[in-house]
Amino acid sequence: MTASSNDAPLDLPSRVPRRQDLRAARERIAGRTHRTPLFSCSAINGIVGGDLFFKCENFQKGGAFKIRGALNHLFSLTEEEVRRGVVTHSSGNHAQALAMAARARGVPAHIVMPETAPRVKIAAVRGYGAEITFCAATEEARTATAARIMEETGAHFVHPYNDPLIVAGQGTATMEILDQVENPDMIVTPVGGGGLLSGSALAARYFGSSRLSVWGAEPELASDAHQSLREGQIVPALPPRTIADGLLTSLGDVTFEIIQAAVEGIGLCSEGGIARAMRLVWERMKLLVEPSGAVPLAAILERTIDVRGKRVVVILSGGNVDLARIPELLALEDNPPGAVS
Amino acid sequence: MTASSNDAPLDLPSRVPRRQDLRAARERIAGRTHRTPLFSCSAINGIVGGDLFFKCENFQKGGAFKIRGALNHLFSLTEEEVRRGVVTHSSGNHAQALAMAARARGVPAHIVMPETAPRVKIAAVRGYGAEITFCAATEEARTATAARIMEETGAHFVHPYNDPLIVAGQGTATMEILDQVENPDMIVTPVGGGGLLSGSALAARYFGSSRLSVWGAEPELASDAHQSLREGQIVPALPPRTIADGLLTSLGDVTFEIIQAAVEGIGLCSEGGIARAMRLVWERMKLLVEPSGAVPLAAILERTIDVRGKRVVVILSGGNVDLARIPELLALEDNPPGAVS
Repeated sequence: MTASSNDAPLDLPSRVPRRQDLRAARERIAGRTHRTPLFSCSAINGIVGGDLFFKCENFQKGGAFKIRGALNHLFSLTEEEVRRGVVTHSSGNHAQALAMAARARGVPAHIVMPETAPRVKIAAVRGYGAEITFCAATEEARTATAARIMEETGAHFVHPYNDPLIVAGQGTATMEILDQVENPDMIVTPVGGGGLLSGSALAARYFGSSRLSVWGAEPELASDAHQSLREGQIVPALPPRTIADGLLTSLGDVTFEIIQAAVEGIGLCSEGGIARAMRLVWERMKLLVEPSGAVPLAAILERTIDVRGKRVVVILSGGNVDLARIPELLALEDNPPGAVS
Repeated sequence: MTASSNDAPLDLPSRVPRRQDLRAARERIAGRTHRTPLFSCSAINGIVGGDLFFKCENFQKGGAFKIRGALNHLFSLTEEEVRRGVVTHSSGNHAQALAMAARARGVPAHIVMPETAPRVKIAAVRGYGAEITFCAATEEARTATAARIMEETGAHFVHPYNDPLIVAGQGTATMEILDQVENPDMIVTPVGGGGLLSGSALAARYFGSSRLSVWGAEPELASDAHQSLREGQIVPALPPRTIADGLLTSLGDVTFEIIQAAVEGIGLCSEGGIARAMRLVWERMKLLVEPSGAVPLAAILERTIDVRGKRVVVILSGGNVDLARIPELLALEDNPPGAVS
């Protein structure tokens, strides 16, 4: 064993996944997830002035990275813990991921979704055999509904991001990146609740070189992670106004502590920038990416994250975009809504 | 050298590319094109009942396979032949490919486009530094305009498909496939003018196993290749009515002779089938594919090409779809126009 800066312990509380937890996660999900490829695009490199590598989690099972954490959590549970099934509240990619993971583990999944959830997401979750319970579209209603289901069924609750097993699972994407890209300078991920960002930051610290930095990116209209870092405490997310519908949640205590300790910074981007980034990925790379997944490239295009002269891995976190909305999303490039001042 | 059925000579006229012409093409374009990857999708395999591998020429330079033929043609010419530049007529992917190839060779490109060509395609061709001459949207006008430019400039004409060097270049996609997929049973490509289909069929005969068959696919609303094979002579394409805007051209004498000799058959598909195939590739595979590129999968879905129990490579020929048209294209899935009876 050689001494390196990566062996320096992170000053983190006990709920933070350790090196061995990430290694175990990687073994646990191997064979149940795709080792997604990386793509690059010389036209985009020319625009941003750096070498970008896009880690294509839009090709991941379920169309997003979320299956990594969900599988890691479910396959960490004992037969006794999991046999009455699992429950979560989510209208997004986590709902689908938990439904898939529960099916892989052979147990029921109960998903609490707001009545306002898009039909396409409801159909996807049902398609994986999960049982959906609808509730009002408030934080209070979804928490209460999930609690009631836990009580009635004995199902095990799996939080979408504020959970060490979820964080460790999401970190496996960066573990793969470190095998796939030689000497990256930076890794950039979107940040909503912070599961992917905190997992990526831990993986980079544990397994990457000492000069590798990890950045988060979020919309100006959902800049709670940026504000939280600045103020040193979790600032709740504003009511949703951004098109990046995967990034509306607030950080949790688990993810926030890791992000404070191990993330270099958070870059912001405009709604028009997200639309421009999506257009580049769709038109130039021929990849379907969802708005949230385009946020890191948007922050790079708007130079709130400076990649000039650097080797940078961007995690394209998901591709579950509603195709019917594409023209409306593109129109934002020319007519973006104003940011909150 | 071992004797195999592939050493059997094809009974073909002298304008048909030989084995060594395809090998030379592959060497000529190596380093100037991408060796595109193959993707598979278990959900689609479940629907069609075969193992499909999608050769992603939507990731090719310029977003389509066309650059293969254009580069092969341009880099086969002597300095004297090419120094006054090249000319072609095309409103589609060949225009862009020839512009790119001319830039790579360092010579001018003159592109004759109909006045009605989409702005996005005009901009792409201009972006590669080509000079565009507009003409009326008729066969007569474009031929006359190209002839006038040849006379005025001394530029060398490069036909979009009815040309042995173009055919050999397009065949390199299948040469790559044979390195990438073990023992495929079938290769399916779209057919418009027949450059890709005839090149694929030659590559399969020259370098594939004797049980490998090559199929073409085209829309019912542009079924001239199917009719040509049935009648034993080239049937001209009907006026354009299909959404597969890359497949509107008639076969040429070079491509038709190869297709007659070496292609197993042509599968047809409906417009609604093309829309359904696009939706599957977009939503399930997260890949941008253009309508023409989805035609082989559409024919497979509609069982005019039977892939059950087979290992089948589908060439996703291009990804240059106008994003603003996506909802309109998807709507065809539910409300397809009727086929010509």
